[in-house]
Amino acid sequence: MTTTALPASHPLTDGRTADSALVAALRGRRPAHRPVWFMRQAGRSLPEYLEARAGTGMLESCLTPALASEITLQPVRRYGVDAAILFSDIVVPMRIAGVDVDIQPGVGPVFGRPVRTMADVEALPALGTAGDRGFFDSGLDAIRAAVTITADELGHVPLIGFAGAPFTLAAYMVDGRPSRDHMGARELMHSSPEVWDALVSWTSRAAGLFLRAQVLAGASAVQLFDSWAGSLSEADYVAHCAAGSRTALMSVADLDVPRIHFAANAGHLLDAMGSAGATALGVDYRMPLDAAARSTGGRFPLQGNIDPAMLAAPADALTRHVKDVLARGGEAPGHVVNLGHGMPPHANPDVVKRIVDVVHERG
Amino acid sequence: MTTTALPASHPLTDGRTADSALVAALRGRRPAHRPVWFMRQAGRSLPEYLEARAGTGMLESCLTPALASEITLQPVRRYGVDAAILFSDIVVPMRIAGVDVDIQPGVGPVFGRPVRTMADVEALPALGTAGDRGFFDSGLDAIRAAVTITADELGHVPLIGFAGAPFTLAAYMVDGRPSRDHMGARELMHSSPEVWDALVSWTSRAAGLFLRAQVLAGASAVQLFDSWAGSLSEADYVAHCAAGSRTALMSVADLDVPRIHFAANAGHLLDAMGSAGATALGVDYRMPLDAAARSTGGRFPLQGNIDPAMLAAPADALTRHVKDVLARGGEAPGHVVNLGHGMPPHANPDVVKRIVDVVHERG
Repeated sequence: MTTTALPASHPLTDGRTADSALVAALRGRRPAHRPVWFMRQAGRSLPEYLEARAGTGMLESCLTPALASEITLQPVRRYGVDAAILFSDIVVPMRIAGVDVDIQPGVGPVFGRPVRTMADVEALPALGTAGDRGFFDSGLDAIRAAVTITADELGHVPLIGFAGAPFTLAAYMVDGRPSRDHMGARELMHSSPEVWDALVSWTSRAAGLFLRAQVLAGASAVQLFDSWAGSLSEADYVAHCAAGSRTALMSVADLDVPRIHFAANAGHLLDAMGSAGATALGVDYRMPLDAAARSTGGRFPLQGNIDPAMLAAPADALTRHVKDVLARGGEAPGHVVNLGHGMPPHANPDVVKRIVDVVHERG
Repeated sequence: MTTTALPASHPLTDGRTADSALVAALRGRRPAHRPVWFMRQAGRSLPEYLEARAGTGMLESCLTPALASEITLQPVRRYGVDAAILFSDIVVPMRIAGVDVDIQPGVGPVFGRPVRTMADVEALPALGTAGDRGFFDSGLDAIRAAVTITADELGHVPLIGFAGAPFTLAAYMVDGRPSRDHMGARELMHSSPEVWDALVSWTSRAAGLFLRAQVLAGASAVQLFDSWAGSLSEADYVAHCAAGSRTALMSVADLDVPRIHFAANAGHLLDAMGSAGATALGVDYRMPLDAAARSTGGRFPLQGNIDPAMLAAPADALTRHVKDVLARGGEAPGHVVNLGHGMPPHANPDVVKRIVDVVHERG
């Protein structure tokens, strides 16, 4: 981690994205219009995505720079959103590291060898350090290439770097596959806290190196995505997970990019997540943004939180809902409009486009 | 619903259970020791259950009075818990009504015909009214028989009647099977609120009649179990679900039994759930009981909320956790110790027994 500043040719330093609506809102300023993008905007809900990816596996797509870049750009072209987010998957850094993991259609990530003992953790591949040109760092070149191509194409539209959060990565590795309540992980943190801590230490370094590579290659912000932290009490989050998120997020702190932390179903964790290295917080659709602003003492720009289920509502009900989100988001010191969870696979692109138009007209 | 009082021979009126620790705590009194029982205490984690049920399907077991009663009694014998809860499943009333539903091992409830249109709702079987001796009421006789046998056997230990909450039942029926985020139900309530309301009206009457039959046959309290309401914002819960829960719970209000409402993952809904016909609230493991008491203005006795994952912790850590739950529960006007979610299938019965002992010694 020898670099401690962005290169002069980076979009955030060369004048391209520093004054974008997204970066301004994430830094607590009020841009001319409210910026909007959508979690999972790139991918399964777009016909052009299905066409581009036809015949290529999920992880292979993420690791093919031209294809990952094309998929990343598609929603910007179609919707005119205010940010792109790198098309990736939370297990991509593990795959790059050499962990036996694949994404099974209809199931999700499946690991060849679940991690449950100290020996399992010790058998995980070495990650090295940022830029050391070891196995992991070299493997990140495919990600760097995708980011560079994409940022060049995007011009003044910022690209957000992406990583899965250490807790979610560890939960998948303990259970070996998706599980409803992540009981394997939640038990391990109590039954063998030293094994749990060692595993989270590994996942947090993997996530951190993954984010850092994206930022140095041209990402103007990062989002750490915690699918499952909402299954934890605040006490367990603070005791067993916050340090990992902090490690991942602080791995880019010296580069001075906005750091968004989102966890699904985690209204009760927002304040603790803010204290874990974030500069902005994503809010699940269940917690109104004004309540989220209050519960975090107005310390953070907020991102969110249109209910994805509302995409199925009649147009006037959806518009009312979006205006309500805009009004409540106005209570936060900086507001980036987003969904309050990922884009549904069956979302109608015309409806999504209408949301962008409403936000840009009203926001 | 002609009966408006319990019969004189009911356990709650004939002196058997009115002064039990459970009923006292649920009525806001402080019994000599803190009562304890566990959600899903009857069933999959007990070897004697696996033996008793061997070769019998889940729903068939629930509908065979002697077997359902035996399974209900097993945890009382083994653990000395302060209440039994009827061994059942949330889809039992649908099966009794004649809906095409089965429980697939490893999957959960699967419906032959998902309910998504008004025609689908209108095609649901008629439920009749309490005690009308129609098809549904007659089908409830198997449940009445199980309750009567069990209550007789239990003596001074109260039996809790059980039903799945209208939202959860409706969510299963819309998706046709378990789903991670209940998007089908959450979309339907916005896209076709009149269809959704009609479906919830049906599920709430089914749940209400199911609870009422159990109470009249000998249950001394009821619990309405909402597996999935936590997927809703408070606004959606109030607008689209609370009325259904209220219908189900108020179906036994004239009989003056305590009415517990539990929803998983629903700290943000507790206050609204209290206003939906409950006299006591079950609290998920994620929200500390003292915070739950504050968030509901001290209006309700609370039940909970040992983290099921802590059953895997070393003995001293588990004991500390149980003592913490007892201390925080002391802030509520009445406290029934329970898990903060269902018993894990792999729970060690010796560990569960130790929790009961700690509660009875300390509580």
